[in-house]
Amino acid sequence: MTIKNYMQTVGLRAREASQIIAAADTALKNQALHAIAEALQSNHNALLAANAIDMQNGRANGLDDALLDRLELTPERISAMIDGLKQVAELPDPIGNITDLQDRPSGIKLGKMRVPLGVVGIIYESRPNVTIDAASLCLKSGNATILRGGSEAIESNRAIATAIAQGLATAGLPESVVQIIDTTDRAAVGELITMTEYVDVIVPRGGKSLIARISAEARVPVIKHLDGNCHVYIDDKADLNKAIAIAVNAKTHRYGVCNAMESLLVAESVAASVLPALAARYAEHGVELRGCEKTCALIKAAKPAREEDWYEEYLAPILSIKIVAGLEQAIAHINHYSSKHTDAIVTEDADRAAQFMRQVDSSSVMVNASTRFADGFEYGLGAEIGISTDKIHARGPVGLEGLTSQKWVVYGDGQIRL
Amino acid sequence: MTIKNYMQTVGLRAREASQIIAAADTALKNQALHAIAEALQSNHNALLAANAIDMQNGRANGLDDALLDRLELTPERISAMIDGLKQVAELPDPIGNITDLQDRPSGIKLGKMRVPLGVVGIIYESRPNVTIDAASLCLKSGNATILRGGSEAIESNRAIATAIAQGLATAGLPESVVQIIDTTDRAAVGELITMTEYVDVIVPRGGKSLIARISAEARVPVIKHLDGNCHVYIDDKADLNKAIAIAVNAKTHRYGVCNAMESLLVAESVAASVLPALAARYAEHGVELRGCEKTCALIKAAKPAREEDWYEEYLAPILSIKIVAGLEQAIAHINHYSSKHTDAIVTEDADRAAQFMRQVDSSSVMVNASTRFADGFEYGLGAEIGISTDKIHARGPVGLEGLTSQKWVVYGDGQIRL
Repeated sequence: MTIKNYMQTVGLRAREASQIIAAADTALKNQALHAIAEALQSNHNALLAANAIDMQNGRANGLDDALLDRLELTPERISAMIDGLKQVAELPDPIGNITDLQDRPSGIKLGKMRVPLGVVGIIYESRPNVTIDAASLCLKSGNATILRGGSEAIESNRAIATAIAQGLATAGLPESVVQIIDTTDRAAVGELITMTEYVDVIVPRGGKSLIARISAEARVPVIKHLDGNCHVYIDDKADLNKAIAIAVNAKTHRYGVCNAMESLLVAESVAASVLPALAARYAEHGVELRGCEKTCALIKAAKPAREEDWYEEYLAPILSIKIVAGLEQAIAHINHYSSKHTDAIVTEDADRAAQFMRQVDSSSVMVNASTRFADGFEYGLGAEIGISTDKIHARGPVGLEGLTSQKWVVYGDGQIRL
Repeated sequence: MTIKNYMQTVGLRAREASQIIAAADTALKNQALHAIAEALQSNHNALLAANAIDMQNGRANGLDDALLDRLELTPERISAMIDGLKQVAELPDPIGNITDLQDRPSGIKLGKMRVPLGVVGIIYESRPNVTIDAASLCLKSGNATILRGGSEAIESNRAIATAIAQGLATAGLPESVVQIIDTTDRAAVGELITMTEYVDVIVPRGGKSLIARISAEARVPVIKHLDGNCHVYIDDKADLNKAIAIAVNAKTHRYGVCNAMESLLVAESVAASVLPALAARYAEHGVELRGCEKTCALIKAAKPAREEDWYEEYLAPILSIKIVAGLEQAIAHINHYSSKHTDAIVTEDADRAAQFMRQVDSSSVMVNASTRFADGFEYGLGAEIGISTDKIHARGPVGLEGLTSQKWVVYGDGQIRL
């Protein structure tokens, strides 16, 4: 069987399964999630054994330590996967909800019903736990899923797939509700992202280059998260204690995350009052500072920032700092350089806050809060399948609702168009 | 200047203008809409003169009568454009609305703000009034617009563009809020649909082949309306008087529209009671019937339907009819053959209606109402930019809200992540 034929078969099976899982009620979907959790538990040793093969092959192939760490399954990580399944089972089921009901002059009653997208393709890298995270969110939101993990995790993913299939069968659902692409051939990805007749949306999870490549080649719509070049702007009217707390937290709470601040903007009138204190705090954390000319004049430890620094997502203890004339220049800078992920203003002035919230074109905009709050759990989504920096469909953290759409429903009593 | 350079310039200007129109308040946008209406009125003669050139060229180039009819501007059509602008000014402005406010355990207040998409590219064929329809909806929803009309309408579109520019200038808005691509070179379309840095969404309006080609080649997300192969299913538990009224209306009210019924499904147990009466009504309207074997046995006038009939959007007085075992088979048939536009059930049984509404995967699903109601005006959207048969972002009639998205807004008081 060619890769194209194989993927067409996978796609057709997913399309058929999507109608069954779309019609499944909440109790059945939750039963399946719990059954998968139990299957993971009872397959615990098989999962560790399969992962050991991947780890051995990974070491033999010279994978670096960071990649091996992401690849590794431990008893704790398996427990976390099981807990995650149970948490998704607890989330409210969005499917079938009808909202915005209204009576129209024609006599029809009009509303919107929340429905699954259909078939979701997930493309990810080495972390095997994504297999469960993604499958559980898609299942709860009534979608069929096609999962394509990294080739280095193939044995782990096969073992997880076996547990998922057992759980689905226990619940009386077809195994094709969640399919894992059982080949490491890269041509399979090319097929997956162009099978518009079988796949409704692609969610890539992984590094910037993976996502950029998939976005460039996909024919299926992509919900993508490219990068997080997040800003905090300290306004003239900021409470400087809040400003310092937020700017320190947004940068130093965790470095390798997409909602960390990468660039700090400070209004000129308060720069001298706040930047030296901030620089001292950053020095304690070992954060390297790269500043504009005015910043370097105020802070001796700062190196000069180059143009490319303003675009950079460091994911590291490095921060670029720019002193701006005020709110307008801050908004213009953010809309030019930001990756449209998350940007925050610190100000006590409600009008300025409102202007920032309205005019900054990012998926999350914040006033007087750390950018680190841009997260599915913090937003109460329960879990997230990614953080979208796209403009259409879903922006920001994408939870169950981002994996759904709404269709129009019309209730009549024999109405015809006159 | 090459076409690529020209389009890059158009794109950059649109991106810049999008920030200005996104920040514009409702009064300013409505002022612009009224000023454009006045400019159309005062440029009335220039519009007719420009259109006369297009019509003359069209006749010289052998355009058929239907195309010439769509191309023609008359005093009545110009009045309709002016009325349309005033109606869009009356619509509520969705931009800036904040909904779903909630307090999170961290102390932040979370909500969603309705925002424009940014830059919308509209690609359409010969009807010059689309220039005004599309521009007005995009303007009211805070988007910058790039319009690409058919080459046969270039003089009319230039004249309309002049009026739009006058109106924008009167309101103090930059002319680049609405740009018309001022070349008939087809390469411009190729640039427009791939300039992902400058264009946020493409809305193609026109025939199936135009839309299919754009969807296949676009890198920018497309809100598309491919076709309307709409169904009515007459259930075992239908009120047969309602069934006849709806099936006649859905087919014969207008033939050339995407929400007309193209295929009728009838439950076997009621086929003999309802089909002969229906056939008589269709005969009065001169509708050609193409039926399955059982239908042909009941109705002598019906010709045998071929497999391709079930896929067909006739847009003509032709109807395919299939007798099905019951609800399940009707749903399966619709989900297989329908274009996911609009499908209706006629039944008095609430459970069957609910199953149909839930399981039929179309942008509008209806019970006891004519498919002809699937329309932006009937749904109270005021106007529509198209009817989407996509699964993500917007499904069904797309009005102002479909040209917007939501971003997350977070209000804190100095909260940091612990």
